[in-house]
Amino acid sequence: MRVVGIDPGLRNLGWGVIEADGSRLTHIANGVCKSQGADLAERLLSLYRQLTEILNRFSPETAAVEQTFVNKDGAGTLKLGQARGIAMLVPAQFGLTIGEYAPNTVKKTVVGVGHADKVQIAHMVKVQLPGADIAGPDAADALAIAICHAHHVKLPAMRRVGS
Amino acid sequence: MRVVGIDPGLRNLGWGVIEADGSRLTHIANGVCKSQGADLAERLLSLYRQLTEILNRFSPETAAVEQTFVNKDGAGTLKLGQARGIAMLVPAQFGLTIGEYAPNTVKKTVVGVGHADKVQIAHMVKVQLPGADIAGPDAADALAIAICHAHHVKLPAMRRVGS
Repeated sequence: MRVVGIDPGLRNLGWGVIEADGSRLTHIANGVCKSQGADLAERLLSLYRQLTEILNRFSPETAAVEQTFVNKDGAGTLKLGQARGIAMLVPAQFGLTIGEYAPNTVKKTVVGVGHADKVQIAHMVKVQLPGADIAGPDAADALAIAICHAHHVKLPAMRRVGS
Repeated sequence: MRVVGIDPGLRNLGWGVIEADGSRLTHIANGVCKSQGADLAERLLSLYRQLTEILNRFSPETAAVEQTFVNKDGAGTLKLGQARGIAMLVPAQFGLTIGEYAPNTVKKTVVGVGHADKVQIAHMVKVQLPGADIAGPDAADALAIAICHAHHVKLPAMRRVGS
């Protein structure tokens, strides 16, 4: 089963593709979509196009998107929400099932504790995906989300995880 | 100049298309996209498809999207943000310029005061677009956003050659 993990962000959207064969995980690719454009609409379109290209290229069978952390910064939440709309739309257009996981669930699955920092996550992602050349913290987070999804879905009884 | 106004919302996304010929405004169409689907991804995809169909059908030359009100309800802001991401993406895919207006700017332009209620907005939209059969408050808001945009943009395309 090929899984794409997505860490949504308006400026940097992390993505990571892994192959899960039972409990054996293999790294396929990872990277960061950097939104380009003078205004919000262009940046969203840029993310949409890059993510569409990635799904076309790596043909994942299922997707997982991090649940966005809602904080007191309303403007920040709105920006993230707009990017997350794109991150949910593109896999839906490809007909993929989409799992949504809270950051703590991802950390607990990948690191073993719910409050791991970015360095620990990147380290454990490397341990679980030997040989992966990781494009940065957003890509490491996206791979962690993909790993989390691979651990949680039981094919063929795979269900969408509700938001 | 044909203008589409969009009032973003995850459950109900209002839209309205008008024709602006100098200061003369004509109603073309309006409606509300209701998102369908069992989960967030399907609902976003549903909005995306309906909005794409509307732009294909009415071929607007420019778009205007209401700036979302950021409040203390983080979860609500996130939902609205995701819908707004789609509302910005679709006109960008059609290559349209997109104006963004705060609710107060829209009200001030259409009603004359910045704190008008929905009834006043719907009334003034009907006055300015005689004969329009309005599909509800979200559609009225979308038409108000389109009217606001028509008042604010000064495009060369608005001038008629030889007149």
